[in-house]
Amino acid sequence: MLQTQHQSDLFQLLRIPSISTLPDHKADIRKTVDWLRAYLNQIGITDLQELYAAGMTWESNHPVLFAQKISNPELPTLLIYGHYDVQPVDPVSSWLSAPFEPEIRDGFIYGRGATDDKGQLFTHLAALKELSEEWGEQWPLNIKILIEGEEEMGGENIAALFAQPEMQELFKADYGVLSDTEFLSAEQPALEYGLRGIAYMQIDVKLADFDLHSGLFGGGVRNPANALAYILTNLYDSETGKILIPGFYDDVIDIDAAERANLVSIPHDGAEFLKQAGNAKAPFGESGYSTIERTSARPTLDINGIWGGFMGEGAKTIIPATAHAKVSMRLVANQDPQKVAKLFADYVHEIAPSGVEVSVIEIHGGDGALIDRNSPAMQAAAKSLEMVFGKQPVFTRSGGSIPVVALVKKHLKIDPVMMGYGLPGDGLHSPNERFSLSQFENGIGCNKQFYRALTQL
Amino acid sequence: MLQTQHQSDLFQLLRIPSISTLPDHKADIRKTVDWLRAYLNQIGITDLQELYAAGMTWESNHPVLFAQKISNPELPTLLIYGHYDVQPVDPVSSWLSAPFEPEIRDGFIYGRGATDDKGQLFTHLAALKELSEEWGEQWPLNIKILIEGEEEMGGENIAALFAQPEMQELFKADYGVLSDTEFLSAEQPALEYGLRGIAYMQIDVKLADFDLHSGLFGGGVRNPANALAYILTNLYDSETGKILIPGFYDDVIDIDAAERANLVSIPHDGAEFLKQAGNAKAPFGESGYSTIERTSARPTLDINGIWGGFMGEGAKTIIPATAHAKVSMRLVANQDPQKVAKLFADYVHEIAPSGVEVSVIEIHGGDGALIDRNSPAMQAAAKSLEMVFGKQPVFTRSGGSIPVVALVKKHLKIDPVMMGYGLPGDGLHSPNERFSLSQFENGIGCNKQFYRALTQL
Repeated sequence: MLQTQHQSDLFQLLRIPSISTLPDHKADIRKTVDWLRAYLNQIGITDLQELYAAGMTWESNHPVLFAQKISNPELPTLLIYGHYDVQPVDPVSSWLSAPFEPEIRDGFIYGRGATDDKGQLFTHLAALKELSEEWGEQWPLNIKILIEGEEEMGGENIAALFAQPEMQELFKADYGVLSDTEFLSAEQPALEYGLRGIAYMQIDVKLADFDLHSGLFGGGVRNPANALAYILTNLYDSETGKILIPGFYDDVIDIDAAERANLVSIPHDGAEFLKQAGNAKAPFGESGYSTIERTSARPTLDINGIWGGFMGEGAKTIIPATAHAKVSMRLVANQDPQKVAKLFADYVHEIAPSGVEVSVIEIHGGDGALIDRNSPAMQAAAKSLEMVFGKQPVFTRSGGSIPVVALVKKHLKIDPVMMGYGLPGDGLHSPNERFSLSQFENGIGCNKQFYRALTQL
Repeated sequence: MLQTQHQSDLFQLLRIPSISTLPDHKADIRKTVDWLRAYLNQIGITDLQELYAAGMTWESNHPVLFAQKISNPELPTLLIYGHYDVQPVDPVSSWLSAPFEPEIRDGFIYGRGATDDKGQLFTHLAALKELSEEWGEQWPLNIKILIEGEEEMGGENIAALFAQPEMQELFKADYGVLSDTEFLSAEQPALEYGLRGIAYMQIDVKLADFDLHSGLFGGGVRNPANALAYILTNLYDSETGKILIPGFYDDVIDIDAAERANLVSIPHDGAEFLKQAGNAKAPFGESGYSTIERTSARPTLDINGIWGGFMGEGAKTIIPATAHAKVSMRLVANQDPQKVAKLFADYVHEIAPSGVEVSVIEIHGGDGALIDRNSPAMQAAAKSLEMVFGKQPVFTRSGGSIPVVALVKKHLKIDPVMMGYGLPGDGLHSPNERFSLSQFENGIGCNKQFYRALTQL
């Protein structure tokens, strides 16, 4: 199939396996940043910096790439955010094509990062490329671009950068935009006004220095996997879906009547939801709330991974030396991740069974956010979407976490617009991640429309 | 260090990685059987057969090697049992020397199978080799040898063989002996008269066809790892250590006063027990019983392995598609593994949370056994141990499972003698498995003494 220049450029970016959480991919982080620098240079954005917060270095962190083109300080400034890192790819055997050999099938670009977030970030870079040809040297809008490399691992560097006053000055803007969210469906654009935060924890339970024979020691010592199961079960009411950590719900702002009315008005196809959920058999969650409410406006607790002992074929009759779980809580605006992490750790230690050592690590945290949907930039975004996609967007809340939104809101005092072009079923964080070709092409057009609208405000 | 011929022979056997549960090691099974055939031939036992039960083949199973030397049908016959298969070796990084490159350090032979069971089996082969030189062509005792290759994976083949009347005729003997158990300490020989059975199960919980983004789907569907933790926790009372499966204890014969008096008389060093348990911090088990009782005469339930979702470094924000656990129950004599497996499966299905698919597989089962400690063969064994090791053995119950003991008892109507030479701390099923050199050498001598004693009964 004949590729457009934009597709071919994006494919170059997708081929670099910039998995931020795996140390083996450090060289790919370098390649990705270099690729982005070259691309930005080519479209006339030559003021580039790789940023590290105080105390951080290339060895300890992945750089934040900052780029700007200030045509005239009197003009309004737009800050564009994206991230160049991607999630791991396991289980790799579930991919129909290799995760880092992007290919087009049935109108979709398949590959890790296709939609989260390389493909969506690239709709902005491509829009600027097209406009740079139209605008020439002097642009009617100042552009700042922040591209981070730790979004999938907690965003330590960018969070620390935003806390530094000189960086707040450097990033200062009148408007903000990012594309890391999704439409309700191919026919229904959406603008998100709420995001969940996160507190991501790890529990380690240790019995012994090595695995034990389950016949000789069974009945004599506490099995660490049994102990872990006990702890995990007591975090969460299996019947009602309520989280049992004391104080967990204290800071949650409940959904009021107006909010509920808006959320109820959003179309929801229960059968389609289950299909997108990997053909799950039934919905489940906190009692008293709808699926849309539970997946966007209510906090949750999920085991992200669990392991210990023998995981091979057949049988091995051991008591595991250790057992482990990764557990994350999605938080809503006003819940403080650090406070929740402490409540979690205190409670785990309190309920931990005797005879094993239990430790709790906070892997990362991020704030949730609620955005003003009536701001001029938000309304300009809504009009741009309607013009390009032919339908007014709905205003939704997302269940995901984009910590930078809370950072921008808090430190730059602006409400960034979340104008994402993903579609349900794109498989973020899953095998066979994809990005619709038409969303990609129309996304570029919509970004151009949005930038132009900002120059008219 | 200069090796004896016996050590050098055993090292050849230990070098073959005959892990029965891993299909990749099928060729090593062949090599091991061939090695044993050659050794037996060399010591004058030339009537050799590789046995498969009806419906089984080399492709489906590992052969049982049967060998016999019938010098005179009027003489008494001894059946010697051992197994040539070994456990997997993970985590391989915890081994100080490679698991299949045996070496001697500080008076111990280190390597997978050193004590369980290649090293102990070999004390019999070496004893026969020495006696064959003394006895010449006509032995004063008929010898039958059964060496299986599926002991560490459930022993399907040998169990089915024992159920066939023509095999019961082939295996028929007056006495039985096996060395797959251990002393109380290097100074205190032991003869075991009780073994636990086992029911080894796997629970698979499925939510979806692929992992899901925990932000977009968290709160919308049942997390399979949370559901698995719930099931596992409800199998077992974390406080009292009692198993909660209805009917589980129905067939358990409780420990009576005489039995308790014997078990109480066995020396037990609590600190040493914890040291052998990989430096565990405290004992734990079913309330109302001592550690010796709980680890040998009471049934238990242990998670042998648990896995699902992301197990790498850092964070991956997914809801796992599936979660899994291997769970085994050690049973005491009179508990039927098939009945227990059904109670387990029924209960798991009954308590399984909604919204996920739960399936239960029985991986293998084996009967426990209680042996008459006053039989002539048992008394002959006790005297042989006292002569060679200088101390009367104590009579103990083991917490492990040796399904063949129950098979021999049931189908051949004899009480096999469990004359094992292992020591606590030998690391069966663990990294750095070892076998004491002096136990190895004295074990050979003790076996010779025992065989001679049998010819005098």
